Amino acid sequence: MGNCVYWCRDCGRTYDRDEVRYLCPACGERYRPGQPLTGVLTAVFDYAAIRKRFKKKQPDWSLFSAVETRCYPKYPVGNTPFFKADRLGKELGLADLWIKNDGLNPSGSLKDRASFLVVAEANRIGEDRIVAASTGNAASALAAVCAAAGKRAVIFVPKSAPKAKLVQIVLYGANIVLVDGSYDDAFRLSLEYTDRKGGLSRNTAYHPLTIEGKKTVALEICAQNGFKAPDAVVVPVGDGVIIAGVYKGFWDLKQAGIVAKMPKLVCVQATSSDAIHHYITTGKYRDAARPSTIADSISVTAPSNAHMARHAVLESKGFSLLVTDEEIRRAQARLARTTGVFAEPAAAAAAAGLAKAAKSGKLKRSGRIVLLVTGHGLKDIDAPLARIILPRPIPPRLDAVRGL
Amino acid sequence: MGNCVYWCRDCGRTYDRDEVRYLCPACGERYRPGQPLTGVLTAVFDYAAIRKRFKKKQPDWSLFSAVETRCYPKYPVGNTPFFKADRLGKELGLADLWIKNDGLNPSGSLKDRASFLVVAEANRIGEDRIVAASTGNAASALAAVCAAAGKRAVIFVPKSAPKAKLVQIVLYGANIVLVDGSYDDAFRLSLEYTDRKGGLSRNTAYHPLTIEGKKTVALEICAQNGFKAPDAVVVPVGDGVIIAGVYKGFWDLKQAGIVAKMPKLVCVQATSSDAIHHYITTGKYRDAARPSTIADSISVTAPSNAHMARHAVLESKGFSLLVTDEEIRRAQARLARTTGVFAEPAAAAAAAGLAKAAKSGKLKRSGRIVLLVTGHGLKDIDAPLARIILPRPIPPRLDAVRGL
Repeated sequence: MGNCVYWCRDCGRTYDRDEVRYLCPACGERYRPGQPLTGVLTAVFDYAAIRKRFKKKQPDWSLFSAVETRCYPKYPVGNTPFFKADRLGKELGLADLWIKNDGLNPSGSLKDRASFLVVAEANRIGEDRIVAASTGNAASALAAVCAAAGKRAVIFVPKSAPKAKLVQIVLYGANIVLVDGSYDDAFRLSLEYTDRKGGLSRNTAYHPLTIEGKKTVALEICAQNGFKAPDAVVVPVGDGVIIAGVYKGFWDLKQAGIVAKMPKLVCVQATSSDAIHHYITTGKYRDAARPSTIADSISVTAPSNAHMARHAVLESKGFSLLVTDEEIRRAQARLARTTGVFAEPAAAAAAAGLAKAAKSGKLKRSGRIVLLVTGHGLKDIDAPLARIILPRPIPPRLDAVRGL
Repeated sequence: MGNCVYWCRDCGRTYDRDEVRYLCPACGERYRPGQPLTGVLTAVFDYAAIRKRFKKKQPDWSLFSAVETRCYPKYPVGNTPFFKADRLGKELGLADLWIKNDGLNPSGSLKDRASFLVVAEANRIGEDRIVAASTGNAASALAAVCAAAGKRAVIFVPKSAPKAKLVQIVLYGANIVLVDGSYDDAFRLSLEYTDRKGGLSRNTAYHPLTIEGKKTVALEICAQNGFKAPDAVVVPVGDGVIIAGVYKGFWDLKQAGIVAKMPKLVCVQATSSDAIHHYITTGKYRDAARPSTIADSISVTAPSNAHMARHAVLESKGFSLLVTDEEIRRAQARLARTTGVFAEPAAAAAAAGLAKAAKSGKLKRSGRIVLLVTGHGLKDIDAPLARIILPRPIPPRLDAVRGL
């Protein structure tokens, strides 16, 4: 484990890790439905110490961990493939395009990384119950890691959540509370639950270790990329915690002298779920009016980590763009057809944004660009299923096989 | 690449790899619907040379590859997690139970390994079209690797194949031929197609490199297990190619002096799809009468690789058993609940067999047992979806949360 403190970007205060659990006590007001969280904490490490001790030949990643590795669940998460996507690159006119396929985490999404670290923290502080509000990937990730670690997962889900999303959660043995209300209601109720009844909240951004868990994808990209930062990383953005995690990982690496520069972070949102995009491009926050996109994992009214997400994009000299559902669908098919990666719609949104950015010349054609695939396409087969066109059946004779 | 020849276990003849492509010309008769294949070839390496050159500290796995690594597609396959499953082990009374989770291959199943090697072979011989008959995992695996490698996949599918299974295949851009007939019809037609119209057949067992591809899971288990063979590996069995591949991997390792013994191979079939089980236990082959199991990936009338599968179990001093659909369902839920691994029904069948074998005392309680999870549960959510019982929705007030 690396020595670290929690730091509040809003007020500058720092805290020992056992002094505070969630938001900054000074800035993090009670949860207000429909508002991004304030006082989200950042783990800040002793980078001078890491500089001395970190060796590229035998990298000790625990130096970047806010939780002791002995507390880690015995459940391998991460170490997902990173590879050059020549065929897609050629179609897009990008000479050095790479894919980080985080859909190959155990429960099928990058969110396993956050759940892993929060469960490690639960082991450290001796907490057996972990609580979250979610309708999708975060919930199944938490349920999966809790199953492996023998923890109890209590998950608040709005009753409108699609049944298919609940399959994993139920099978992993989590306790589900179906809430007759919105996601905001479920979120608020889950916070009341941990306040009054106990358990550790894994709500995204609310617990600072969700960002720390997600940052490990950046550490891996760096190592797999020969301990260099790529020129840009394209990230699908919903509540803003993944892009904040990617930023945090590269920021840690830069502070520790392991990479020389930050990659530009490209934020991709769906047109109807554009709160962070609007915030980045105008400087003013407002909710997304009425999110409705096939990319359900990035469909958010009031993104919890809007402030950090904006900061990540601006500080990295990246940019933000929007994609339509039609662009997402086309990008999902193109990604599968040219790379063999079947991505869920939210992850395909990043591929759509990549295509758009390449076309508009916003990405350097010779630059090393990384597309971050955050979830597996098998998480949601209904989206592509509706559009599949099958050929007519033929009688089982060779002369009936035409055109192949 | 390691020096190797193809050897026919049935007649003892050997062939250079460019002398023969599929079955042994002497023993491998034309495909007869409803019969296991004869003359399936085995790649035999120069084990003395491997013995000299293989170093555990810097293992050169290409020595065990029948295809030059320069022909490999740039598409990472394998390197899946291997970890100790303490909670499930405790429930089953097994002190040293491990899981190899091959559902975390890119297309969601172990079959990516076979497709990877056949596509490498296609690169080697300059073939652009790869052909297979399949309704499920083999087809999506082939389509995925072909997409990444820029090959054309031509896949013969019986028209009764469930649409959900076709989503991946279509998205990956494969050419689908829907056949108005049975799987046997599709298989026969795919062989006629490659005979007359060309292309490389990836039909399982028919092409010897499908077994060689699948054997890599055994090489990985060996390396991840500290270069030792475990005491037993529990494998779900349909057409018999995966278990033959696991056997072949450990057999190679033993010939090369890397492991001292073979693990016992435990064959698990579904009660209605019992052709190989019957063959192992009685010595007489007959088709499965009417396969109908939720574990569709192991639902087979006439398993193509029955002979090798039987050999693998008998030679390794393993055993075979059957499990019911109800046992499979229960095992799927138990596996998810105790290990965080969501396995497709076919893979859950192995977990059901493991539980049965543990209960009956057929597995040494202190032995190192490996459960091979061959496919991801997200491949088929209908099976568990039908059984999920959700709690009643509650109003969004803390006092309505009961019992948690």
